[in-house]
Amino acid sequence: MEPIADATAATTEPLVIMGAGLVGSLLSLYLVRRGHPVHLYERLADPRRAGLLEGRSINLALSDRGWRGLAGVGVTDDIQKVGIPMYRRVMHDQQGQLTQQPYGQEGQAIFSVSRDSLNRTLLDLVEAKPEAQITFGQKLTQLDLPGRRLHLRDVASGQEYDVGYQRLFGVDGAFSAVRGAMQRLDRADYSQQYLEYGYKELTIVAGPGGAWQLEKNALHIWPRGNYLMIALPNLDGSFNATLFFPYEGPLSFESLRTPDEVEHFFADVFPDAAPLMPNLDTEFFAHPTGSLVTIRCWPWSYQDTVLLLGDAAHAIVPFYGQGMNAGFEDCTVLDRLLNEIGETDWTRVMDEFERLRKPNTDAMAELALYNFVEMRDRVADPRFLLQKRIESKIAAQYPGRWVPLYSRVTFSPDTPYAEAWAAGQRQEAIMAQLMPHIQAEADYEKPEVQALVKEQLAEGDAQ
Amino acid sequence: MEPIADATAATTEPLVIMGAGLVGSLLSLYLVRRGHPVHLYERLADPRRAGLLEGRSINLALSDRGWRGLAGVGVTDDIQKVGIPMYRRVMHDQQGQLTQQPYGQEGQAIFSVSRDSLNRTLLDLVEAKPEAQITFGQKLTQLDLPGRRLHLRDVASGQEYDVGYQRLFGVDGAFSAVRGAMQRLDRADYSQQYLEYGYKELTIVAGPGGAWQLEKNALHIWPRGNYLMIALPNLDGSFNATLFFPYEGPLSFESLRTPDEVEHFFADVFPDAAPLMPNLDTEFFAHPTGSLVTIRCWPWSYQDTVLLLGDAAHAIVPFYGQGMNAGFEDCTVLDRLLNEIGETDWTRVMDEFERLRKPNTDAMAELALYNFVEMRDRVADPRFLLQKRIESKIAAQYPGRWVPLYSRVTFSPDTPYAEAWAAGQRQEAIMAQLMPHIQAEADYEKPEVQALVKEQLAEGDAQ
Repeated sequence: MEPIADATAATTEPLVIMGAGLVGSLLSLYLVRRGHPVHLYERLADPRRAGLLEGRSINLALSDRGWRGLAGVGVTDDIQKVGIPMYRRVMHDQQGQLTQQPYGQEGQAIFSVSRDSLNRTLLDLVEAKPEAQITFGQKLTQLDLPGRRLHLRDVASGQEYDVGYQRLFGVDGAFSAVRGAMQRLDRADYSQQYLEYGYKELTIVAGPGGAWQLEKNALHIWPRGNYLMIALPNLDGSFNATLFFPYEGPLSFESLRTPDEVEHFFADVFPDAAPLMPNLDTEFFAHPTGSLVTIRCWPWSYQDTVLLLGDAAHAIVPFYGQGMNAGFEDCTVLDRLLNEIGETDWTRVMDEFERLRKPNTDAMAELALYNFVEMRDRVADPRFLLQKRIESKIAAQYPGRWVPLYSRVTFSPDTPYAEAWAAGQRQEAIMAQLMPHIQAEADYEKPEVQALVKEQLAEGDAQ
Repeated sequence: MEPIADATAATTEPLVIMGAGLVGSLLSLYLVRRGHPVHLYERLADPRRAGLLEGRSINLALSDRGWRGLAGVGVTDDIQKVGIPMYRRVMHDQQGQLTQQPYGQEGQAIFSVSRDSLNRTLLDLVEAKPEAQITFGQKLTQLDLPGRRLHLRDVASGQEYDVGYQRLFGVDGAFSAVRGAMQRLDRADYSQQYLEYGYKELTIVAGPGGAWQLEKNALHIWPRGNYLMIALPNLDGSFNATLFFPYEGPLSFESLRTPDEVEHFFADVFPDAAPLMPNLDTEFFAHPTGSLVTIRCWPWSYQDTVLLLGDAAHAIVPFYGQGMNAGFEDCTVLDRLLNEIGETDWTRVMDEFERLRKPNTDAMAELALYNFVEMRDRVADPRFLLQKRIESKIAAQYPGRWVPLYSRVTFSPDTPYAEAWAAGQRQEAIMAQLMPHIQAEADYEKPEVQALVKEQLAEGDAQ
C-alpha cells in the first residue's frame, strides 16, 4: 500500500472526526480551541438544509455535565435560548390525578432541548470557526486501521475516495462504523443488548396562542407499571410525548393494530393526555417504533490513532437522560487529559481516557436501566415518593453528607458516575433500614428516626 | 429484486448449509437422512486436499453428547478409529510429581480426537451421499435475509455469484458471516467477550517406536494457578500440548521474548514436560497465539428461513471440552424437533429449537469459564482432590441421587446443560457444609459425616 503523503505532517494536518452529531460537534469545538484544524465527515445530510419533514423531533434532558461540556467552549448562552427548565417530575395517574417530585433543591432543573435545535446550533458554531470543515453525506464504507485510511462514499454522487489521517475520532453514534472496524480486531469485546420495549414518539399539541396545556416547567410521566409515557415541553407550547411499551404481549405494539384500538387504549390509560393528542391515530402508525439498546465495547482506542467517544463507545437507554450528557462529559475529560498529559503522548492520553471513562459509562448504563423501572413503576408508589421526601429532609439536615442519587448523577458537573452509583446504593441500604419506621413525612422528626439516621450516617463515615 | 425461480420449490430444492466444519458436516448427514438434498458451502479449502502444513492440529475431547450426535446418523464406528480414550486427569506439579483424578466411574472416558481427522472423516461420509454436495473455497460476502439470497465469492477465481435458498443453516463458526448479517437487524442481541489469556499449541514428541512418553490414556494438566498447560494424546505417540497464558503481565506472552527465555521458563515451571518438547523454541514463536472468546447472540433464527447452530450461535472457551459436543447436540435436538413437530411448520421448529437450546448453551458458556479456574488452579489443591474423592464415595453410596457435575455434563448424553449446572451448584453447597468435617478420605465413614450427607440429601429431595 502506498504511504499517504500527509499522514506524518503533525501540526497542520486536520484531526479527522467521523460524525457531526451532538458530541462530534462539541468535540470539534474543543479541538479547534486547542489550535487544531478539524475535518468532520457526517453520513447524514446537513440537518439545517434537509427539509423539516426529515428531522425526527426528539427532546433531550440537558443537565449539569452537559452544561459543563458546553461551558468549556463558551457556548452555554447559545444553548440556553433553546432550552426549557424542568424543575420536577409530574406524575399522572390513571384517573388524571397529579403528584410531583422535585428533581433537586430549589432552583435546580434539567433542561428540555430539542436534539435538532441543539445540533443545528452546534453546527453553526462549528462552521463559524475557520479551522473547522464539515462534509455532510459521506458514508464510511471501510476503515483501514493499520493504514490509517478512511474509505468514504459520497452518498449523493456515489463517488468513493480515501482520506488518510493521523488521528481519528469515532463519534458516529450507537451504530458507529468506526467501532464496526475496531470490533473485528482480535480481542475486541463488544455487546449490544436490546430491551423488549420499543418507543413511539407522539405529540401533545399546543393550546390556543401557543399555550402549554400541561405544566410547562416539568417532565411529565404516566407510570403504568409495565410501561409508561413521558412528555417534555417544547418552546412552541407543544410537548413531545414518548410511549415506552412492550413489543409483544397482551398490551403491546403488537396488540394495538387499528386506530380505534389505539384511541381506546389511550383514552383508557392516559385519560388526561389523550384529548391533547388529536393526531394520535395517524402518528401512532406513521411514526416508526424505535428500539432501545445498550452498547458496551472495549477497547475504545486503536494504537494512538483512533479513539471512540459518545454513543459509539457507550450507547445507553434514555431513562436517566444522560446519553448526551455522558458524551459531552467525554469531551470535558479528553480536554482535561490533553491539558495534563500534553499532546505529545497520544497513547497515554487515549489509554488514560478509556481507563478513566469506561467504569463510569458502564455504571451509567446500569443506572439508565435501573431508572426505567423507577420511571415506569416506582414513581407511582406513594411509599416511594414519601421516601424521596424523607431523603430531601436528610439532605437538608446533613448538607454535603447526604446527596440523593439523582442529584449526584444529574446536578453534579463532575462526580464520576461509578462513584455516584456506589454512594446511591449505600444510601438506598440506609433508607431500607429507615422506612419501616416512617408512615408519614412528620415521622422524620421522631427521636428514634433521628437517632437512626445519625447512627447510619456515622457508620457510613466510618467505612 | 427479481424473485428467484426455484425459491418456492420445496421438496427438491437443496437445504443450504453455510459451513462444512464438524457441526455443518454432521448436520448435513442428519438432513440427508431425513430425505433432503443438501448443498454445503465452505469458505476454506478442502482440508483433505490442502497440504498438511496448512492444517492446524488441534485436539478435541469427544464425550457422550458428541457420541450421541454421531450415533444418530450411525457413524460412531468410523470415528472410534481415530479417538483415544482418556480415563482421568493427570496433574503434573512443579517438581514433576503426579496426582490423578478419574473423570467418571470405572470405564468412563472422554476421547482425544484430532479436529482435522474428525473433519476429514465426516467430510468423506458426507461426500459418500449422492444427495449431498460440498463446494469449498466459497466466501459469503453478503446475505440478503428478506430476499433469501447468499452472495458468494469463489476465493480462487474471485468470481461472485448469488444463490437463492428456502432454508439456510448458518454453521459457519464463531466468526459466522451468516450471524454477521443477522446481528445487523434491529433488536439482535449480541456479545463477544475475550479472556485476557491466549493459547499456544506446542508438541510433546513421541518416544522411540512411536511410544507415548506420558501416560497415554489420560488428559495431562500442569496447573500453575494463574496459567496452565494441558496435553492430549495422538495416535502416533505424540501429544498436542496447549499453553493457556496471560497476554500481558509479569509472566505472559508479552514477557517471553526470546527462545532462551521460553526454554528457561518451561524448564523451570514444566520440568518434566520440557525435555519432551525439543521443538519448543521454534514452535513457540512460529505458532500464532490464539485468543479465547465467548459469543452469545439472540435470536438464532430469521423467520422460518435461517437457523444458526454450533459455534455460530454459541462459541465458548475450550476448558470443559464441550464446544463440539454442544454443536453435535444441536443436531440431535433439531432432528428430534423435526420428528416431533414435522417439517411443515419450520417457524415452530426454529422457535422451539432456540427456546430449548439457548438456556443450555448459556449455562455451558458459564461452565466453560468456571472450569478454566478449576483446571489452572483448583486441581492443584489436595483439598479439592479430596473433595472429588468424597463426592465419588457419595455417588457410589447413593446411586442416581448424587451425580458429580462433571459427569452430568460429560457422561450424560442428554441432561440439559442448565439442569446439570443447577444440580452441580446445589451439590457444591452441600460439599461446602461437609468438607470442614473431613480431613482424610477415611473420615467419610464417620457417623456424623454419614448423618450429615443423609440429612443434606433428604433436604435436597424435599426441595
